[in-house]
Amino acid sequence: MLGGSAVHFSLAASFFTDVRVVGPVGDDFGDDEYAVLHGRGVNTDDIEQVEGKTFFWQGHYEDLNQAQTDDTQLGVFETFEPKLSEASLGADNLFLANIQPDLQRGVREQMPDAGFVGLDSMNLWIDIAKDSLLQTIAGVDLVFLNDAEIRDLTAKPNLPLAAKAVLDMGPKAVIAKQGEYGAALFTKDGFFALPAFPLESVKDPTGAGDSFAGGFLGYLSAEGDATDHATLRRAMTYGTVLASFNVEEFGTERVSRLTREEVDERFETLKGYTTL
Amino acid sequence: MLGGSAVHFSLAASFFTDVRVVGPVGDDFGDDEYAVLHGRGVNTDDIEQVEGKTFFWQGHYEDLNQAQTDDTQLGVFETFEPKLSEASLGADNLFLANIQPDLQRGVREQMPDAGFVGLDSMNLWIDIAKDSLLQTIAGVDLVFLNDAEIRDLTAKPNLPLAAKAVLDMGPKAVIAKQGEYGAALFTKDGFFALPAFPLESVKDPTGAGDSFAGGFLGYLSAEGDATDHATLRRAMTYGTVLASFNVEEFGTERVSRLTREEVDERFETLKGYTTL
Repeated sequence: MLGGSAVHFSLAASFFTDVRVVGPVGDDFGDDEYAVLHGRGVNTDDIEQVEGKTFFWQGHYEDLNQAQTDDTQLGVFETFEPKLSEASLGADNLFLANIQPDLQRGVREQMPDAGFVGLDSMNLWIDIAKDSLLQTIAGVDLVFLNDAEIRDLTAKPNLPLAAKAVLDMGPKAVIAKQGEYGAALFTKDGFFALPAFPLESVKDPTGAGDSFAGGFLGYLSAEGDATDHATLRRAMTYGTVLASFNVEEFGTERVSRLTREEVDERFETLKGYTTL
Repeated sequence: MLGGSAVHFSLAASFFTDVRVVGPVGDDFGDDEYAVLHGRGVNTDDIEQVEGKTFFWQGHYEDLNQAQTDDTQLGVFETFEPKLSEASLGADNLFLANIQPDLQRGVREQMPDAGFVGLDSMNLWIDIAKDSLLQTIAGVDLVFLNDAEIRDLTAKPNLPLAAKAVLDMGPKAVIAKQGEYGAALFTKDGFFALPAFPLESVKDPTGAGDSFAGGFLGYLSAEGDATDHATLRRAMTYGTVLASFNVEEFGTERVSRLTREEVDERFETLKGYTTL
């Protein structure tokens, strides 16, 4: 079914700001898929339709915090070179979804004036392209990684020290994703942690991290790039809310029929769950 | 070195209320050990000194969330039958530290008028004495277990549903301990979650759960057994603070020289880390 970082991110961010998605799809990406994005007002002009099959991933979960990959088919991703239209190059802010870090850096360098740049990555790139990833991280503002990735990247087993080491590379904020335990925010002078929204039924964690980043950066974008700690905290809360809707059903099913009212209602509920 | 559930709990609770500790020690438990307890004003009249060796545990940590046991010597614990003095039987509240659940229930039944009763347990008893543990849980007010234990006990993989199943057995509150991710509080009509206090150096997680329970129930005791949600939230925060000091050094080293001022200062810092 429809999925992927760019899709989950765009849908989540669309609740707060205008979103343009850049990426390649194959012949199998048709009207139904576009309709999900257009249904949330996502601009798809920079989706490049090329011959071949859209990137395909299949997996399952024994532990909901850890996907088990059954099949990965790169398809049109194999030869992908991001091309940004003038309109996309003029966007206020940029999110670099998880892909080979050379490609991320190439895009970032095309948008030197971006208000802020967020980045996601994964253990694969830490293992096989660490130097490129480190160079890429040095050029972004907000880094989204899970606990284990932050530790591996810095070779520091203590998370606060590992996050500090990432901040020393340049970013203003490191967001440690912790699955069902929520997320922690590290900045030079602050710390904030938020649990995941408690759910009695979790159907599909796929895309939760991208929905989280979408809610986070979408909100931040709407706030005019403010990166004071109070704004970052609210951004993290919106990210957590979007991720929680994402996992309630499969793929994009829940988020594609979500309303802003439901988002704000859950924001208040989550705030109530964490207020001393 | 000095340790054990009763010791860690008592020291933590002593910052808030008067504590009487009940349990057996061997010939090897001497003035230095008593001095740590007396230094925090813990009443040791019900410590029963018997022939033999004090309970001994040795372990190590590869992952700070999961102790690896190297050696366990029951010593005087093997034939332990809890005996409570009149003074202890008259205590306002009771904490049943982790031990065989028949023994816990025996003590609980001797104190039918206790304001509240807290209970800790472990996977061993879920595996080999589950029926007794379930019967014991039905008679207490607050249950402290880690995530995996709550899931195992109820055979429910979803934590909110598992916690609800424990609440259905009788307790007013279930506190899910989550190691470095903090803790979550479940009651019939409420939810609260709190991260662990972020530390750049963790030396020894041994006893953190008991220090957490001690801070939690000690504070609750000082508040006159109130179990409204706001009081439980503050109790959880004090528990988290005490646990954080516990793990900064080995054994009881840090907590035995801790001050109430340091406790309250960290309470405020933690509140600041979680306020939206």
